[in-house]
Amino acid sequence: MSGETAFSAYNPAALVDLYQLTMAQAYWHEGMHGEAVFSLHFRDLPRGRNFVLAAGLHAVLDALESFRFDRHTLDYLAGHELFREDFLRWLEDLRLDATVRAVPEGTVVFGQEPLLEVTAPVIQGQLVESLIMNQIHVQSVLASGAARIVAAAGGRPVVDFALRRMHGSDAAVQGARAMYIGGAHATSNVLAGRRYGIPVTGTMAHSYVQAHADERAALRAFAELYPETTLLIDTWDALDGVDRVIALAREQGEQFSVASIRIDSGDLEALAGTCRQRLDEAGLSQVRILVSGGLDEYRIARLVQNDAPIDGFGVGTHMGTGGHAPTLDLAYKLVAYEGRPCIKTSPGKPVYPGAKQVFRQQDAGRFSGDTVAAHDERQDGAPLLNEVMRDGRRTAPDEALADIRARAAAQVRALPEDVRKLEAATEPYRVNISPALRQAHEDALGTRR
Amino acid sequence: MSGETAFSAYNPAALVDLYQLTMAQAYWHEGMHGEAVFSLHFRDLPRGRNFVLAAGLHAVLDALESFRFDRHTLDYLAGHELFREDFLRWLEDLRLDATVRAVPEGTVVFGQEPLLEVTAPVIQGQLVESLIMNQIHVQSVLASGAARIVAAAGGRPVVDFALRRMHGSDAAVQGARAMYIGGAHATSNVLAGRRYGIPVTGTMAHSYVQAHADERAALRAFAELYPETTLLIDTWDALDGVDRVIALAREQGEQFSVASIRIDSGDLEALAGTCRQRLDEAGLSQVRILVSGGLDEYRIARLVQNDAPIDGFGVGTHMGTGGHAPTLDLAYKLVAYEGRPCIKTSPGKPVYPGAKQVFRQQDAGRFSGDTVAAHDERQDGAPLLNEVMRDGRRTAPDEALADIRARAAAQVRALPEDVRKLEAATEPYRVNISPALRQAHEDALGTRR
Repeated sequence: MSGETAFSAYNPAALVDLYQLTMAQAYWHEGMHGEAVFSLHFRDLPRGRNFVLAAGLHAVLDALESFRFDRHTLDYLAGHELFREDFLRWLEDLRLDATVRAVPEGTVVFGQEPLLEVTAPVIQGQLVESLIMNQIHVQSVLASGAARIVAAAGGRPVVDFALRRMHGSDAAVQGARAMYIGGAHATSNVLAGRRYGIPVTGTMAHSYVQAHADERAALRAFAELYPETTLLIDTWDALDGVDRVIALAREQGEQFSVASIRIDSGDLEALAGTCRQRLDEAGLSQVRILVSGGLDEYRIARLVQNDAPIDGFGVGTHMGTGGHAPTLDLAYKLVAYEGRPCIKTSPGKPVYPGAKQVFRQQDAGRFSGDTVAAHDERQDGAPLLNEVMRDGRRTAPDEALADIRARAAAQVRALPEDVRKLEAATEPYRVNISPALRQAHEDALGTRR
Repeated sequence: MSGETAFSAYNPAALVDLYQLTMAQAYWHEGMHGEAVFSLHFRDLPRGRNFVLAAGLHAVLDALESFRFDRHTLDYLAGHELFREDFLRWLEDLRLDATVRAVPEGTVVFGQEPLLEVTAPVIQGQLVESLIMNQIHVQSVLASGAARIVAAAGGRPVVDFALRRMHGSDAAVQGARAMYIGGAHATSNVLAGRRYGIPVTGTMAHSYVQAHADERAALRAFAELYPETTLLIDTWDALDGVDRVIALAREQGEQFSVASIRIDSGDLEALAGTCRQRLDEAGLSQVRILVSGGLDEYRIARLVQNDAPIDGFGVGTHMGTGGHAPTLDLAYKLVAYEGRPCIKTSPGKPVYPGAKQVFRQQDAGRFSGDTVAAHDERQDGAPLLNEVMRDGRRTAPDEALADIRARAAAQVRALPEDVRKLEAATEPYRVNISPALRQAHEDALGTRR
């Protein structure tokens, strides 16, 4: 324990499971410095999900480029009798010279497809496992969930309101970026906006209305300071609230330029309908109606299907924690050591051997199926994994976030109709394992038994 | 966007929703610097849950004590046309002089009970909302889930293996601490161990076995380097694996001191039974059996009920992401401004007015019910909220983590039997609202309407 606070910077190398370090020392002790390939994939899509959007690569590349054990962590490890002093000295000097191949952020991926592969001396590949998974997992989970919510909203903007219920500060900031990749229109999260250039928006909270004894005074004061704002109308009663907005419009006359009202509770469909009617009757058809409060993709889809006069959605908890699929069965597995293909035969957890490539086939502009193949095979379709790091350095600058977001949208659009639906696809997206890869797996099984 | 990496330190003040800042500027513009009380509570327990363990206060106090807007964030805000230069200058000089009352970490709490209350000028109380919730929410969620998993394990140690699938680095580190509070025995997370002095343990992964062409050679090499280690036996076949451990014991003779084996896949109950039998027959009854792999409280409870010969559990995904209840309906509400009680009447979201205290009654050493009262009322039982910060400074050093963990265990033990069960309690824990508080709510409603 130290003088660090909960908000001190993290040394990415310290974000490691102890067994990575004990295994690293064992490899080192045994002189095992051979080249290994580790492959990051999930076995199956989460229940009810038809695709996953890959995200988080940028954070992984940041961490790998700057990877080094700091003095603080080394001193801590030295206090464990597990570690030899000469190993810790070796660890202190360790810098990564890994090669990384990965699918670009915003790519749709499926079970058994590598999102990322690390080729490096086995110790290096082992030491970065927890870190890579910790970042890619949550960001892919949140990007994927956001894509569903955005799809349900059918073109109406979805704003990320999730900061307060997301799992800690890192999830909040990286997750806001991931949800933006998944199609969120903006975030309420200032730090995420500052760090990643995501559009930041916000309205007002009930507390502001409560602090003023009088709702009308509160709405007026806010609209005077922020003429094009959104006014929250349901602190007391949404219908009284909308009437107060209408009264304010009458009072302000041509000055009135409030952009929207927000309803955060109650029967959103019915309230939106009545508010729309009252606003229209008052000649305020330009005032939009935003809703929030416990929304998920299913509630949003129902509101949209029922033609509720809603112009946008603020979504918090469900989008920010992964909603109905907060985890992904992501695994990072050794698939080759010193050129020897490696597999695993633990029941229910097959791992195909060797470095891989994924080929995506198209038919009339739509994705028609993928083939997972050995990385040096040639198959129909476009390869998904590119080299993004060589000898521990990025091979190219990070992509612009806007480009990643556009890719995600294009990829989701290119999925078969059935796979884009919120419901489990009748015919799941087709992922083939190439005959050569199947054969390599059989061969490796033969050697093992 | 800037030269920051994904792992740059966070300025806690920047972890804020934009609307907190627009409301702050509005209060400032209107000269509203009156004292406000904000109350942090959840409305209802998550479905199927009988209690929540409060955690995360230490991080909140860290953030509030060091709260200030950094230059980077102020420059970013200056780039938004929303904010006036003189307000941003005021913001730059802002330091908190808040008073905070809170229940100690490791306290069991229920719906409508404040976990924490902030008394401060309204702007200050408003600006820290998202930050406080972002930290208390996830830490309470994870401590609560861990307490259930630990209870299911019936005294057998539970080790946190969750780092890789937790939601980002902050959740991983603060969450490891929260799960330790909830009763986890140790963590695999080195950074959490270093930062908070949590016991850190670890075994070996399949990759280590795979990297060696020969499982026997891998097990032998690891046991030679770490004589009292845990050997993972199911890379190929758990029963072949245990036979290899037995062969190693014969080979090493009196040198053999392997502490345990770990099974990570397959039918854990059946495999543990056969492994136990083979180990015992080989005279290795001292070798313990640990299991892991997709465990949650229900699977663990079943293994324990069935008397599976299992000595400990490694739990990852479910414990580290909140398992079956990854979120809590936590809210931070204005309950008083300038001495005037504040309520809210949004449908389904009642908020009782004013600063509060919770009194916990006991009967024969067991908690028998709580009363939520106005903070200056006297009720039967022991008050739960204490002043932990005055004028922006902690009133006492942080409690030792061991003490918090012991409190959590004692509190869970003191719950009624029915409330400690994994299943939803037949008779949920009794939380009364004091007559005076109900009356204050009625009075406030009367004023509003």
